[in-house]
Amino acid sequence: MTKVRRSDRLIDMTRYLLERPHTLVPLTYFSKRYESAKSSISEDLGIIRRTFMQRQTGILETVPGAAGGVRYIPTIGRNEASDFIADMAHRLSETDRLLPGGYVYLSDLLGTPEVLRQIGRLIATQFANQQVDAVMTVATKGIPIAQSVSQYLNAPFVIVRRDSKITEGSTVSVNYVSGSSARIEKMELSKRSLQAGSGVLIVDDFMKAGGTVNGMRSLIEEFDANLVGISVFAEGKFAGDRMVNDYTSLIRVDDVDTKTNTLHAVPGNYLDYNQAMFKGMDA
Amino acid sequence: MTKVRRSDRLIDMTRYLLERPHTLVPLTYFSKRYESAKSSISEDLGIIRRTFMQRQTGILETVPGAAGGVRYIPTIGRNEASDFIADMAHRLSETDRLLPGGYVYLSDLLGTPEVLRQIGRLIATQFANQQVDAVMTVATKGIPIAQSVSQYLNAPFVIVRRDSKITEGSTVSVNYVSGSSARIEKMELSKRSLQAGSGVLIVDDFMKAGGTVNGMRSLIEEFDANLVGISVFAEGKFAGDRMVNDYTSLIRVDDVDTKTNTLHAVPGNYLDYNQAMFKGMDA
Repeated sequence: MTKVRRSDRLIDMTRYLLERPHTLVPLTYFSKRYESAKSSISEDLGIIRRTFMQRQTGILETVPGAAGGVRYIPTIGRNEASDFIADMAHRLSETDRLLPGGYVYLSDLLGTPEVLRQIGRLIATQFANQQVDAVMTVATKGIPIAQSVSQYLNAPFVIVRRDSKITEGSTVSVNYVSGSSARIEKMELSKRSLQAGSGVLIVDDFMKAGGTVNGMRSLIEEFDANLVGISVFAEGKFAGDRMVNDYTSLIRVDDVDTKTNTLHAVPGNYLDYNQAMFKGMDA
Repeated sequence: MTKVRRSDRLIDMTRYLLERPHTLVPLTYFSKRYESAKSSISEDLGIIRRTFMQRQTGILETVPGAAGGVRYIPTIGRNEASDFIADMAHRLSETDRLLPGGYVYLSDLLGTPEVLRQIGRLIATQFANQQVDAVMTVATKGIPIAQSVSQYLNAPFVIVRRDSKITEGSTVSVNYVSGSSARIEKMELSKRSLQAGSGVLIVDDFMKAGGTVNGMRSLIEEFDANLVGISVFAEGKFAGDRMVNDYTSLIRVDDVDTKTNTLHAVPGNYLDYNQAMFKGMDA
């Protein structure tokens, strides 16, 4: 095999790194793959690092030493994040989304690849520097969000269920108070899906009183795991005391008027909450 | 803004295209983005095309004319597909996957980003040249597969449910015969999630008698949509007549012995079924 040209290396390395976020790739891997000297590979990585930074694609971290290499950390820039959130708030405000009972139809957005990609990037950026060993959500509508975040963080996701399924094996279950209806409900998670001591990020599509998220928090305790954070796509208005305080939301559904059949969505607290992080990126 | 160097262009274009599979990008977009002549952009794309082909990343299609541009079609090479399938068959054969009743535990694999990425690539490669307007699956365990295929095909996915949910709005429902138990069950899909005339690809995690897949086929008919194909991650052994004949499976679970607590998984029909396609790629 002949030496691979720089342009070909840059293209293939970019693809290779983008497909493996948060994964340490030793320089020797690239130098073997392209039959090229380590010094050339280092130069290539310098070019990729600069382009990724300029285009706010993410950070290419260098880990020095014998066990070192490079690691790609996907991030999103403040402007792109803010544009996406504004666009989502706008699309959520479309009147035909309002369903009987004041519920909001989200299945189209949460089934669209570009939308899921951006939601994943936003949430993964917030937790890029924390130890996330698993992304947790509850079936069904949280799953696409968990999967997208999981891809950008390169961590597996686990699905909590409200109904018992024979295909999950032994499970651990908790009771929780559904905030909106104040009923006692049950949720469960396959026993083998979470290790004690692991860091868990909770994500979900919609949060009102926070009962479901609170239930997942209890489950994490049952598994002797640690809660890393809570992030939801949209939060709704809730009159009483919320059961969850420390969380981020991309969108807030402010006003739901079932008489005039209108709803009003605005940006959630994500950008404010992460102000310091975005400032650090620009610096 | 100064002209962007070739190396920077190659890196950013690669990222841009990889994030937008099956999307036509006009050359003028790139030439504006990088303040570069169209002829330089054309050369860049030639280099990317060649590298993508050599590394079996996918095909970079050129669409000529005023409304033309380039389109990235993700594919997987035969060897990589075959290695992945062999690895999955091996991992499925792990004895501790066997659950009471002969069910197979898959949640760990179907929650792992790299595994989902490859499943998505394999299935998307098979349908790369067909008009897929939506990827359909049934909640819960088919969702991660549908989402991954949807990303590689750049088509939305829709989730059929066995339980009624208030957040879906009006739905269309069908009754179907669950093949294994021969019971009559019901499944439904939100009315607004599928357009008449659209091409629909059915995917699922596991198929035995094919009753669930058959139910989805009836749903597609109810929506006056067209079935493009059926692809499942794993198929199980089934004694009687299967309700579905034309499908691909990546894995086949051949032997489940609940007495010795062993199961035996082998490659499904995916590679054989797509033999002509893979031959065409090598040519």
